[in-house]
Amino acid sequence: MLTIERDNATAVNRMMEARPILRTVAPARDVIPGMRENLLLHAGPPITWERASGPMQGAIVGALIYEGLATDWESAQALVVSGEIDLEPCHEHNAVGPMAGVTSSSMQVYVVENVTHGNLAFSNLNEGYGKVLRYGAYSDDVITKLRWMNDTMAPLLAEALAMSEDGIDMRALLAESLHMGDEGHNRNKAGSIIFTTRLAPLLTRTSAAGDVKSDILRFLGDNALSVLNPVMAACKAMADAGHGVKGSTIMTAMARNGTELGIRVSGLGDRWFTGPVGQPDGLYFPGFTAADASGDIGDSTITETAGIGAFAMAAAPAIVTFISGTPEMAVETTLRMYEITVAEHTAFTIPVLGFRGTPTGVDIRKVVDLGIRPQINTGIAHKDPGVGQVGAGLVLPPANVFEDALIAFADQYLD
Amino acid sequence: MLTIERDNATAVNRMMEARPILRTVAPARDVIPGMRENLLLHAGPPITWERASGPMQGAIVGALIYEGLATDWESAQALVVSGEIDLEPCHEHNAVGPMAGVTSSSMQVYVVENVTHGNLAFSNLNEGYGKVLRYGAYSDDVITKLRWMNDTMAPLLAEALAMSEDGIDMRALLAESLHMGDEGHNRNKAGSIIFTTRLAPLLTRTSAAGDVKSDILRFLGDNALSVLNPVMAACKAMADAGHGVKGSTIMTAMARNGTELGIRVSGLGDRWFTGPVGQPDGLYFPGFTAADASGDIGDSTITETAGIGAFAMAAAPAIVTFISGTPEMAVETTLRMYEITVAEHTAFTIPVLGFRGTPTGVDIRKVVDLGIRPQINTGIAHKDPGVGQVGAGLVLPPANVFEDALIAFADQYLD
Repeated sequence: MLTIERDNATAVNRMMEARPILRTVAPARDVIPGMRENLLLHAGPPITWERASGPMQGAIVGALIYEGLATDWESAQALVVSGEIDLEPCHEHNAVGPMAGVTSSSMQVYVVENVTHGNLAFSNLNEGYGKVLRYGAYSDDVITKLRWMNDTMAPLLAEALAMSEDGIDMRALLAESLHMGDEGHNRNKAGSIIFTTRLAPLLTRTSAAGDVKSDILRFLGDNALSVLNPVMAACKAMADAGHGVKGSTIMTAMARNGTELGIRVSGLGDRWFTGPVGQPDGLYFPGFTAADASGDIGDSTITETAGIGAFAMAAAPAIVTFISGTPEMAVETTLRMYEITVAEHTAFTIPVLGFRGTPTGVDIRKVVDLGIRPQINTGIAHKDPGVGQVGAGLVLPPANVFEDALIAFADQYLD
Repeated sequence: MLTIERDNATAVNRMMEARPILRTVAPARDVIPGMRENLLLHAGPPITWERASGPMQGAIVGALIYEGLATDWESAQALVVSGEIDLEPCHEHNAVGPMAGVTSSSMQVYVVENVTHGNLAFSNLNEGYGKVLRYGAYSDDVITKLRWMNDTMAPLLAEALAMSEDGIDMRALLAESLHMGDEGHNRNKAGSIIFTTRLAPLLTRTSAAGDVKSDILRFLGDNALSVLNPVMAACKAMADAGHGVKGSTIMTAMARNGTELGIRVSGLGDRWFTGPVGQPDGLYFPGFTAADASGDIGDSTITETAGIGAFAMAAAPAIVTFISGTPEMAVETTLRMYEITVAEHTAFTIPVLGFRGTPTGVDIRKVVDLGIRPQINTGIAHKDPGVGQVGAGLVLPPANVFEDALIAFADQYLD
């Protein structure tokens, strides 16, 4: 006999009981399972060079230049096409990365531990705005900034975090930031300064020179997305805690590689259900239009998967200045997501809705039954490598991924 | 011919055009006009020792012990009663202070400059929670903390601010914090970490040892009210810019000393209109009830005077966990304040109201005509000195102060 309701409750309760603690920052090769020198992790479901979008290809090139394995586009492309360099999803290594999400072996990553269930999750460092690797830029200044972040900042973040017995409780940080106008995906202004404020007294005691500490605190404090990556790792740790519950129809991963969006379902193992990405509808930076936009890209939809992001948009009315829409639309979005989820989050609440818990745990049955797809809000990359972010907006996953997953569920459980 | 509408527009436009910049921290005696060794500044309109509330008396005693002028309650009381020590309102010296607001000559104060009109405003340093002078506590640990704040922290804050050419733009900080769930009076969580994040890269470059900088950053970052005092000085600088406009009925000060609340009106000079303070209605900390509460106290109503605080409560739905009520009540409060104000703030906007400007510039005519008094939200002090904060809630000013001011206006302008 099927016990889907009970199994879904198990999955979503595990997600909500997970307590993700930021422990340290370390090189990917030292901490990410299966990481190796000839491997690049990327956002979304599996992809090949040939099918990859412009920003994804640009980020791959940049990462190989950063690693000293290639010197330019052609030599990088040759390494990947020949199979000397493997491409694998971050998600298949307990990791997540925003936009292209490309992570190479010597890049430093945040290490988040779910102390409730013991699983780990990882995410790379946030580069801030402008020309950045995650949007497919790979010029010298992009690589130079990556070196400073990885060689100078990251070891000091590790030294600072080592002084904190308790680490940084990312669930508590998110709960607080949702009361401060963040939704945790595209608005992380409050979370980023909470993060900076928590790190500052620790960083100040590290061994570095005063001006180095000052540069790091300015870099973290001026970047309203600096906490996005540890937030994503925290959401990954929570979502993974709900994965693998037999008989559950709860979505435990949703990710885009710029070409395809893929989801995973708790009771369906590590199989991806994929479909073509949507084109975000939103606000463009001066000089850009929808014609410049890449397809939807990034693992940051792990936030919606864990019950925040667009699902918590009612908590973040000011986000509409960035992604378009009105504060009413933000509330309506959250209310609509209650229709396709099975729980109200016990840790993440929305003051303006009378402190109601955020809609958490997408049931793929409800998505198919009601025809309501999970809302995503997202940054928009230029379709060409090397340009960067051109806007931000709203987008939906393709409907077929939920239908395909539901068919697979029936095949597996109704035989 | 009277031109009240035009004169009120002049007053409120001057308030909104004022741009308060935090410049430095300096000893009160060096920067506050008229400050001297035998003077204590206090919150609210003028008060004598005999009529002062418990927390006001306790703070006076503590300040005199801090200054080395008294050793205990009796010797402090004797100095004040004999007239050796003068008591004067902060407001009469371009200053403001939360709760008792007691400021002595060697205490360090924030110096805020309104760069639009050139006036300065001042406020003392925030002590954080627990047993603190501003709530009338004066035990050894209170004095010890004051010494650390004034002798160790303040000079380093001054050194840090001296490195910043632009200072800290308090209007911009407030505008941002209102988009992050603050209302600027009793909820300053976002503002305090914006403040800490702005100071951190500067403090890190000062001459102090790493652990001293770390202690300061922790003190500022862990205190969700650390920005309240510079915010109050900023509001004072804005409100003062609107003061002294001939023919204007705009309220430019509202302050409580624990016994009386007083207001000042733009077109009526420096005269106070006073009446008995109300008893706040709110939530009490465990172990306390309304029977423990002191009367309404503090200069922090300068926030409502400048268009934030309870007037901006719609921006801060999470505040109801602290002051009582519901998120709907918070919105209704802001909407009600539009009835008695003459402008919508051009810098302070409320996302959830479609980015409408906060209600700004209380017209005493409207208060009297409509019978709607300015809403205040406030911390609640214990009625006895030495205990500290016992809760937070909502309170109204006495109706007579607006009626008395309106009669005085008629006397002055209609003869």
